[in-house]
Amino acid sequence: MWQTAISDVASNKIHIRGYPVEQLIGSVGYAQMVYLVLKGDLPAENAGKLLEAILVSSVDHGITPPSTFSARTIASTGAELNACVAAGILAISRYHGGAIEECMELLLETEQLKYAEKLNDNIAAQTMIAGYLKDNKRLAGFGHRLHTTDPRTNKLLQLAGQLNLTGEYVILARALERELTSVLGKKLPLNVDGAIAALLCELDFDPALANGFFMIARLPGMLAHIYEEKTRFKPMRKIDQKEAEYDGPKERSVVELSR
Amino acid sequence: MWQTAISDVASNKIHIRGYPVEQLIGSVGYAQMVYLVLKGDLPAENAGKLLEAILVSSVDHGITPPSTFSARTIASTGAELNACVAAGILAISRYHGGAIEECMELLLETEQLKYAEKLNDNIAAQTMIAGYLKDNKRLAGFGHRLHTTDPRTNKLLQLAGQLNLTGEYVILARALERELTSVLGKKLPLNVDGAIAALLCELDFDPALANGFFMIARLPGMLAHIYEEKTRFKPMRKIDQKEAEYDGPKERSVVELSR
Amino acid sequence: MWQTAISDVASNKIHIRGYPVEQLIGSVGYAQMVYLVLKGDLPAENAGKLLEAILVSSVDHGITPPSTFSARTIASTGAELNACVAAGILAISRYHGGAIEECMELLLETEQLKYAEKLNDNIAAQTMIAGYLKDNKRLAGFGHRLHTTDPRTNKLLQLAGQLNLTGEYVILARALERELTSVLGKKLPLNVDGAIAALLCELDFDPALANGFFMIARLPGMLAHIYEEKTRFKPMRKIDQKEAEYDGPKERSVVELSR
Amino acid sequence: MWQTAISDVASNKIHIRGYPVEQLIGSVGYAQMVYLVLKGDLPAENAGKLLEAILVSSVDHGITPPSTFSARTIASTGAELNACVAAGILAISRYHGGAIEECMELLLETEQLKYAEKLNDNIAAQTMIAGYLKDNKRLAGFGHRLHTTDPRTNKLLQLAGQLNLTGEYVILARALERELTSVLGKKLPLNVDGAIAALLCELDFDPALANGFFMIARLPGMLAHIYEEKTRFKPMRKIDQKEAEYDGPKERSVVELSR
Repeated sequence: MWQTAISDVASNKIHIRGYPVEQLIGSVGYAQMVYLVLKGDLPAENAGKLLEAILVSSVDHGITPPSTFSARTIASTGAELNACVAAGILAISRYHGGAIEECMELLLETEQLKYAEKLNDNIAAQTMIAGYLKDNKRLAGFGHRLHTTDPRTNKLLQLAGQLNLTGEYVILARALERELTSVLGKKLPLNVDGAIAALLCELDFDPALANGFFMIARLPGMLAHIYEEKTRFKPMRKIDQKEAEYDGPKERSVVELSR
Repeated sequence: MWQTAISDVASNKIHIRGYPVEQLIGSVGYAQMVYLVLKGDLPAENAGKLLEAILVSSVDHGITPPSTFSARTIASTGAELNACVAAGILAISRYHGGAIEECMELLLETEQLKYAEKLNDNIAAQTMIAGYLKDNKRLAGFGHRLHTTDPRTNKLLQLAGQLNLTGEYVILARALERELTSVLGKKLPLNVDGAIAALLCELDFDPALANGFFMIARLPGMLAHIYEEKTRFKPMRKIDQKEAEYDGPKERSVVELSR
Repeated sequence: MWQTAISDVASNKIHIRGYPVEQLIGSVGYAQMVYLVLKGDLPAENAGKLLEAILVSSVDHGITPPSTFSARTIASTGAELNACVAAGILAISRYHGGAIEECMELLLETEQLKYAEKLNDNIAAQTMIAGYLKDNKRLAGFGHRLHTTDPRTNKLLQLAGQLNLTGEYVILARALERELTSVLGKKLPLNVDGAIAALLCELDFDPALANGFFMIARLPGMLAHIYEEKTRFKPMRKIDQKEAEYDGPKERSVVELSR
Repeated sequence: MWQTAISDVASNKIHIRGYPVEQLIGSVGYAQMVYLVLKGDLPAENAGKLLEAILVSSVDHGITPPSTFSARTIASTGAELNACVAAGILAISRYHGGAIEECMELLLETEQLKYAEKLNDNIAAQTMIAGYLKDNKRLAGFGHRLHTTDPRTNKLLQLAGQLNLTGEYVILARALERELTSVLGKKLPLNVDGAIAALLCELDFDPALANGFFMIARLPGMLAHIYEEKTRFKPMRKIDQKEAEYDGPKERSVVELSR
């Protein structure tokens, strides 16, 4: 025999981490379910809201990410939906998405160092960055190819503050950002991967799951691109990223909605 | 040049279907984002809630579904997260998940027949079922190997009623269920795939996306199983489904939570 | 219990379709093994040679095929080899590779029609093409985007002739080509997919396996591209197909080799 | 611009590593093509034969390997061929197939140590094994769960001897085997992964490609299993490995063939 602690399924019975599914439906949101299956318990209200915001922030980023691009490329061959999505998922890997995991590990290491050596945040950050630079290791979570001020980063951190979830990992991330700017003599700001890394640390998730959250977030976006590719374009076209132009709705505001 | 209507991304700007992402974060839920990227507009409140309930209902179903089982099998080879998830996704196909798409097509055909031939629901259902049985075609969405009364089915339909989203597709699904029972002389009840099919028709989604919703729903469950496999078991074990036993939390109630 | 007829494996025993593997190693070639596992018996000498030639003909076709391109795209994200290859395989689908399967079905249908209606080859071809054009169905296996005279097509057909394997499917393929040219008033020549389709029919393979041969053939090419991507380029580059230039060995001749 | 050295493709021209494809077809075997695309040149005759033998040795190993098992599981969901194969490929990873790569690295390290420290084979082997045991690292390529005397191992090594390709890596592999047996006090023989590792080192391949050879070898076997699953069984069955029995051809001999 072997054991599993996720679901208990029998005839007419589906319990997820102990909860009957019919009680979860309608009373618990999707992000809370994500938390439940991965952590084993339902989240506190603020943690559920923060996780949902993290997922919402990464649903789509246009046609250039390799996950989206691969999904569209496979869609163009006439493949079934499962093949297109799988190819997109396969792109979420060390360099695409992987910065969240690496930055989580950096933050967890910094925090361990801080307590082990009884350092303050700034000294811990200095020590870590000096070590990374000496070993020529990538400092994931800082800087971005496209966005100097990523609209997602500040909003997520601000929301975390409102939800009372800005703890020591966010503080350490800021200390690392300051130290990095000081050492390099130029601004290498905490990017969206770094912000999400800090917040997933606040929520006490294992870095090994970081890419999983990115997959959950990006899956609807990939589906939208696959569907658009299949319904708007002929098969086997060469998809040139530089030739794409946006023709969707003009800028509009969520607050206009009466919801 | 070619056109895409999903996202408008430039330096420091990420607009999803026209909405600045920083406005969506914190004010819109994940299920609403799913609706937004796939349909192009944010859902009405009740539609967003129903879609979320559909996603929640299918997050996990134990170790036996081929998606979960494949994901665990690949996890056991020491593969990276993306490979494990992709293998799980590849199992969501014609017979695993595919009943939702097929049942949506059945409902849409029945509805077209009803209007084209000016039939009432019962006659439309009778005509469809007679045709399917004559052609020996599978009637997807009715009956289940394990659950005679699936706890998800009634809950989802009840919730749809409360949300005022029980329209003609649910009525047609019930008409087909009655007719099928009458023709076969035994109960072949609308199952969870059939219920979700009817509700996705109510929400006016294309059947081509049905497996996509199932992928979104099941992805967190797959992640939980992959993580459990990697953290609880040695690599390369033979995973025997019949040897599994549940050792997670005892039955507990959502309503106990003060949330 | 359930049955499998492929391999018999026990301690210190590996029999493939009845043959001890230690007898196969060194005395049987890879293409013969492909034939053996898929058909259940070792091929006649000429059939083995023709199958090997088919596989050799399709090992690589540069960077533009979606399989190769997807594999390189995933390689660029830092993914493991299995993920890169899987993404390439996922592109081998309805429109990429799929023409072989469709053309095999066309040839098998034409042959059935010929015998059922006691037609000669030309009339059978005329009837088929008239039907396809009337139904607006794609006639796979004729014409090519890039090659007006594909170097693979004639070589494969010539070799099949030398091996005494040019039978009725090749004749029917030529009849279809003549008829198509006559009806359309322009040359739409049998392409490499059409030639391979005819030869796989001569070898009596099921069209359902056609994409499988293409996968076997293209896998080494994909590996070469993945390896080149990982060893020659930085991660996360945008791979622009139009910007590629060949810098490998100059044209050289196989006959120069003393082999 | 960016450079690729694999193929030069233009209208009516396909050159693989400089060779016109129409010259390769019919004069070069599949295994030689594998060598050509991966190494950049055609192999010497003995190297081509050895590579072919390696590929032949690993075409199938029954239903239990996770690659085959995943491929069959996905086939049972009604998925297309590309999805089934991709899932099988995804299983070829760290622990399934990965022993070849790890053992190649062990052999290359041992060889480097030998030359760097001017040791004889036995002392080099002793030093390496002592280090691995001290660090509690897995010594890949030795021992097998099922085969005490793997029929592939001796045959491959014997063939390499006949082809004059038994060089220092085979000698080092034997030295490691002797030392391991001596240290552990029980026989942990060089297994098929270890033998293939030594031979791929003799052929001067990069360990990073090791799993690629295993994928090439196993792909036809996976196709045979997928095809058998789709043609012999109903969809969505639970595939219990312990319930399988072989019903294929009785043991037969390759030498009976007049070939």
